[in-house]
Amino acid sequence: MTSQKTGGPAALRKLLPRVRLVVFDFDGVLTDNTVIVSQDGREAVRCWRGDGLGLSALRAQGVDLLIISMEGNPVVSARAAKLKIECMSGVADKGTALSEMMRQRGFAPDQVAYVGNDVNDLPCLQMVGLPIVVRDAHPSVLRAAKWRTRALGGRGAVREICDAFVEILERHG
Amino acid sequence: MTSQKTGGPAALRKLLPRVRLVVFDFDGVLTDNTVIVSQDGREAVRCWRGDGLGLSALRAQGVDLLIISMEGNPVVSARAAKLKIECMSGVADKGTALSEMMRQRGFAPDQVAYVGNDVNDLPCLQMVGLPIVVRDAHPSVLRAAKWRTRALGGRGAVREICDAFVEILERHG
Amino acid sequence: MTSQKTGGPAALRKLLPRVRLVVFDFDGVLTDNTVIVSQDGREAVRCWRGDGLGLSALRAQGVDLLIISMEGNPVVSARAAKLKIECMSGVADKGTALSEMMRQRGFAPDQVAYVGNDVNDLPCLQMVGLPIVVRDAHPSVLRAAKWRTRALGGRGAVREICDAFVEILERHG
Amino acid sequence: MTSQKTGGPAALRKLLPRVRLVVFDFDGVLTDNTVIVSQDGREAVRCWRGDGLGLSALRAQGVDLLIISMEGNPVVSARAAKLKIECMSGVADKGTALSEMMRQRGFAPDQVAYVGNDVNDLPCLQMVGLPIVVRDAHPSVLRAAKWRTRALGGRGAVREICDAFVEILERHG
Repeated sequence: MTSQKTGGPAALRKLLPRVRLVVFDFDGVLTDNTVIVSQDGREAVRCWRGDGLGLSALRAQGVDLLIISMEGNPVVSARAAKLKIECMSGVADKGTALSEMMRQRGFAPDQVAYVGNDVNDLPCLQMVGLPIVVRDAHPSVLRAAKWRTRALGGRGAVREICDAFVEILERHG
Repeated sequence: MTSQKTGGPAALRKLLPRVRLVVFDFDGVLTDNTVIVSQDGREAVRCWRGDGLGLSALRAQGVDLLIISMEGNPVVSARAAKLKIECMSGVADKGTALSEMMRQRGFAPDQVAYVGNDVNDLPCLQMVGLPIVVRDAHPSVLRAAKWRTRALGGRGAVREICDAFVEILERHG
Repeated sequence: MTSQKTGGPAALRKLLPRVRLVVFDFDGVLTDNTVIVSQDGREAVRCWRGDGLGLSALRAQGVDLLIISMEGNPVVSARAAKLKIECMSGVADKGTALSEMMRQRGFAPDQVAYVGNDVNDLPCLQMVGLPIVVRDAHPSVLRAAKWRTRALGGRGAVREICDAFVEILERHG
Repeated sequence: MTSQKTGGPAALRKLLPRVRLVVFDFDGVLTDNTVIVSQDGREAVRCWRGDGLGLSALRAQGVDLLIISMEGNPVVSARAAKLKIECMSGVADKGTALSEMMRQRGFAPDQVAYVGNDVNDLPCLQMVGLPIVVRDAHPSVLRAAKWRTRALGGRGAVREICDAFVEILERHG
């Protein structure tokens, strides 16, 4: 488990043990950022089976998980339900939603990691202590991240993040 | 945002600010040019989630958007509806359709950009001031284009075009 | 339009003008050899939109087209119907079926091209004057072919074949 | 048919002739480890058409075949039914399930091969005489394998395994 970003793993080892909540964008993070559109307008997305094992192991470490997405299509909550992760979909302003949620539940910024891939993730990435982007994130958000995964979104990125968390948390445990 | 075609960005900076209408072919431009065929004959296509943010930003600059496709399957209009873009599908002769539409709405050729990927796009590409092809376009249309995207069709090409437009238009604004 | 196989284009120029019938295997040739299986057991396959334009142009040259597949799922005939190509699906022994069909319709071997990708295509490949395989064909059939496409099955291979036929036939026309 | 792992083919030639049962994990082995999630929560997976010919040839050699999966979605049994392979899905503890099944049917460890791709396959991989992983298996299981396929899961790995078995068994036959 290494990082393409200089100092990535070192930053991880320092920042990660304080994290109590990991927030995931949906499209491009839990999916490969494509959408399959049927002729009746129904949508489907392509996810990674390996994410399930990783997310279960991360939850078993006592870390809270959340999905926040602008996308209003029910495919977001369908995948969240399968993964047994709390989900806020159809969120017009993710920065405000995350900020409000952190305030209500009493999470300090350095207790939160956020995983994103596009410009509408910038407010969230800038708000948390551990901002993460997937390898194939939009160029405009790369600099906002303290860690960039080696795996692509929807092709192992979430599993890679979960594995890194579990490995470091078990060493701290 | 650069181009694989020599002089691409320079040509863009010169031609793009006059453009008031961007016309997109559908298959291979807004999709990855594959079609998923079900055993009952229903079709689905694979699109790029990131296109939505780009097209919204381009529309916010006051640029008109249009999809023209020979394909008659309702999957074209289904995707167009999600993206809130006007759509002409099942068009046998795209050149005549675009020419007529430009005449009716009073668009001069240098006010129009066209994005295509295959031989049936040639009449449209040759008619407009800013002809664009996606990176994986059919070899027969490469020479008709003044810009070839770096991203593949259905895998970021439309977003790349939108980003380039918005970046240049904001500088001119 | 070149070939990865030494002498490919030369062999094509010599053999192709006599061809009056092009026979396509389905999975791996008109599809990318994957099958999407739904939880109710329904199947879907992934095809290439660009094949349609190529097949229409080839038919316009007066060449007959046929799909022969061992696969019995109706997805084969669904795609064939969209492409307006005659189709024999659920064929247990493709060699016998093609041989019988050629006899009935009076096609000599050198008037037939066959496009395949796997071991069950060997009898057909060995029977015709112009045996063709897609780039990602199973290793066991590569030597049976006189031409191997540059494009992958379901990702432009059929279009590449159609383009080569049309280019050579128009020169002979 | 070679292996990326030093000594792979040699180990295969030695271990393989005793094998009477080949057990396959499902996701990532018979699929490409992605899952297509529809907006109503229904799932679909992407499989390799070429696996069918290989599995039939392997069965014709008198080798038993079995699929064991933690995944409870009926997509597993749907694919198994098409391939005519016995299937145990929704298995929480694959190691115990396989161990019990081997005991009941009287298979010794060196008569069993297991093909896996992730950490939940470790108990099974460690239990059998011929543990196999696909090329794109999770890093944590690579060392548990005596053979790693060249092809990716869901993209020819199962066919590659079947071909290797058939080639060696026919030589021993």
